Amino acid sequence: MQYAAVKDVLAGKFAVGDTVTVRGWVRTRRDSKAGISFVNLHDGSCFDAVQAVVPSELDNYSSDVLKLTTGCSVAVEGTIAESAGQGQDFELQATNVHVYGWVEDPDTYPMAPKRHSMEYLREYAHLRPRTNVAGAVTRVRHCLAQAVHRFFHEQGYYWISTPIITTSDAEGAGELFRVSTLDMMNLPRTDKGEIDYSEDFFGKEAFLTVSGQLNVEAFASALSKVYTFGPTFRAENSNTSRHLAEFWMIEPEVAFADLNDIARLAEDMLKYVFKAVLEERADDMAFFAQRIDKEAITRLQHVVDNEFVHMDYTDAIEILKNCGKTFNYPVEWGVDLQSEHERYLAEEHVGAPIILKNYPRDIKAFYMRQNDDGKTVAAMDVLAPGIGEIIGGSAREERLDVLDDRLAAMDLPFEEYSWYRDLRRYGTVPHAGFGLGFERLVAYVTGMTNIRDVIPYPRAPKSADF
Amino acid sequence: MQYAAVKDVLAGKFAVGDTVTVRGWVRTRRDSKAGISFVNLHDGSCFDAVQAVVPSELDNYSSDVLKLTTGCSVAVEGTIAESAGQGQDFELQATNVHVYGWVEDPDTYPMAPKRHSMEYLREYAHLRPRTNVAGAVTRVRHCLAQAVHRFFHEQGYYWISTPIITTSDAEGAGELFRVSTLDMMNLPRTDKGEIDYSEDFFGKEAFLTVSGQLNVEAFASALSKVYTFGPTFRAENSNTSRHLAEFWMIEPEVAFADLNDIARLAEDMLKYVFKAVLEERADDMAFFAQRIDKEAITRLQHVVDNEFVHMDYTDAIEILKNCGKTFNYPVEWGVDLQSEHERYLAEEHVGAPIILKNYPRDIKAFYMRQNDDGKTVAAMDVLAPGIGEIIGGSAREERLDVLDDRLAAMDLPFEEYSWYRDLRRYGTVPHAGFGLGFERLVAYVTGMTNIRDVIPYPRAPKSADF
Repeated sequence: MQYAAVKDVLAGKFAVGDTVTVRGWVRTRRDSKAGISFVNLHDGSCFDAVQAVVPSELDNYSSDVLKLTTGCSVAVEGTIAESAGQGQDFELQATNVHVYGWVEDPDTYPMAPKRHSMEYLREYAHLRPRTNVAGAVTRVRHCLAQAVHRFFHEQGYYWISTPIITTSDAEGAGELFRVSTLDMMNLPRTDKGEIDYSEDFFGKEAFLTVSGQLNVEAFASALSKVYTFGPTFRAENSNTSRHLAEFWMIEPEVAFADLNDIARLAEDMLKYVFKAVLEERADDMAFFAQRIDKEAITRLQHVVDNEFVHMDYTDAIEILKNCGKTFNYPVEWGVDLQSEHERYLAEEHVGAPIILKNYPRDIKAFYMRQNDDGKTVAAMDVLAPGIGEIIGGSAREERLDVLDDRLAAMDLPFEEYSWYRDLRRYGTVPHAGFGLGFERLVAYVTGMTNIRDVIPYPRAPKSADF
Repeated sequence: MQYAAVKDVLAGKFAVGDTVTVRGWVRTRRDSKAGISFVNLHDGSCFDAVQAVVPSELDNYSSDVLKLTTGCSVAVEGTIAESAGQGQDFELQATNVHVYGWVEDPDTYPMAPKRHSMEYLREYAHLRPRTNVAGAVTRVRHCLAQAVHRFFHEQGYYWISTPIITTSDAEGAGELFRVSTLDMMNLPRTDKGEIDYSEDFFGKEAFLTVSGQLNVEAFASALSKVYTFGPTFRAENSNTSRHLAEFWMIEPEVAFADLNDIARLAEDMLKYVFKAVLEERADDMAFFAQRIDKEAITRLQHVVDNEFVHMDYTDAIEILKNCGKTFNYPVEWGVDLQSEHERYLAEEHVGAPIILKNYPRDIKAFYMRQNDDGKTVAAMDVLAPGIGEIIGGSAREERLDVLDDRLAAMDLPFEEYSWYRDLRRYGTVPHAGFGLGFERLVAYVTGMTNIRDVIPYPRAPKSADF
């Protein structure tokens, strides 16, 4: 028996007259008065379903075929034929239909063929992959992930799996998830009455990582070009369409690179992965453009075709102050830009992705490289129309004395960073990198407005089902 | 200025006479009596270092060049020349040497050029990437990860990022890490005096995942061919060379597949990734064969060249009982095989990877598909010489009534599995999959004997530094 994926049948990989078996799920069934049923069959290999034309002569036509409903699983054997219908070149003239699994009570099947809200689908994260929209998101997400790995591999980067559990992440401890095996009903205590974490699994307080950057810098200081692609965590209690408690991050780190080098890397990477999606997932992107966001394809094409605009933070502040627009958050040199500012710059002022550079030192992290002006750091953000910040990066402070001044000024514990300081004590090199939230990338590409709909099982406050 | 990676210089990508700049770290320096220094420079792009021949005529020859020690970071500009020395075809005739970073007190530099034990290197996980062995492991690990993604992509699989934090993992709760944001000094209590997890971040008790399998089955039930590749966790208090608290797993899941289909998939995948390593990382593999395990290359080649042997568990038990060997753990039908048994079968009886199939039901997980004999399940393990079990998989029980019987017999809570049962209520299909511990794969390929040396920052009991 020759099994065929729906995508291969539709792409003409089999000759007309070939006998194949397609296995998948029923999307729709329609019966003609002439005693023929048209069963649309999908298997997730591509966006479209293939039409199986099922004649009433089959033995199980009335016992099985006429009872098929959306979601039933079947194997249909048949011969490839040219399709007379609209839209598709090939269909299947069925000679045998085998039912693997029925749908228990089709009337209450949660994925019954009608329009469901995104909120509703989120409650059925285990069944929503069967819908057009979640299937398309899954394939595009896969395509983007593959393209990211391929891009870095082709450029000579090595993938580093930085740790998920960490004991050294002291910065911003308020937003960390604790990882522990202590018996909560019977916590060990020190003499002072504090929790005795020396009894815990790792012998210390341990948390889920918020970024692999510091860890991956150690590898950039040996293998030159490296990147992470793994999950990161924020215990922020923010129930927004842009935040997840668990999300995937891509963090390249490049030895001997400066801010302009990684700005170019960010632009090259985005263009590469957008091109890959446009070429490899034209079917799904057509769906997003039709049903979700009519700019989905043109927006990506626009990014691919145009140079990113570079702009200094200081110049951006002047533009915002003089643009005649009233913002909710007032603008002046030294403030952190809000989403409304970022979107004005990217959407209205430039109309394309923009790379903002050289931010005030005091609003940025301790590890960012200080510029000679004494007040800014070599940081950059990539702002994209429609979504705002999509990438944040910087040159890293490679000078031990400058780094130490910064640690001291920010009251950060030297001991916690002793290994990080070692990288500056032994053969330090200028280096730079950036971070890209993978789900924001998928949302940007698909036009999906809620980030919870572009990850298989979203985790958010009060929500970690399945 | 034309920058060049060491691998490109050594591979002859530049013409003799071209001027390039190589940036990297000093591995060794040797000075000749004739007033020339030979500086070996590595940048992590490949195993080997490139030799820079530095003449004493350079302005900073005595102030800088003669002070270079292992680990110093430099940029060397020079012209490509044919190498008179042994081993390499090309070298660099230096015209300029710029030092980025010195090594603070070379005598106490932890990575000074002498033989370090693996235990010692583990204490310097942030510096060990600079060593030959950790650099080679990192590149081979990358190569394997890329090959895994490429293999599945080429075969039409979609990558699914299953959740790291989960509230539904009830099985084997003793080995789970708890994830929480509760204030440990001030835990909320219910009326009954128990911990009130409704106050916790996710509104329930939450843990780190031990496997993405159940979650990814939902995607196989819609997209047919899927796989996970992400971190998983075990809070086992086992300090062995084979266990990590945090490790990466690869879990393909295939709709309409049976046990033999995924046995073939496992064999094809292993052969594919081994071939990739032999072709793409010949330099690093030569090092492993020379320094770590002289069988490193021949073992992989042997796997690539030979068919895997399939064997029933029941037959394996007979072989073990009659082999004349005394085992620490006695053998009889129904026991779970120990490492000593697995290794005997793979190493002594067959001398090649072996696929053991159809294990007793009572030693396997609830989701494995029951065979018609009423006492075995359609499970398989791939056992590899030198390491034992490397892959474990099974067909999954797709029949709701049989699954429910199993849940009841094992006293597992139906409510916890209601979403998993839904997959059997709505268009259920036969399906199968397996799990491969990525670090065991890297250990197998490199011949490294401790799994902590094949992951960037190992996590184990009392150990989660950096």
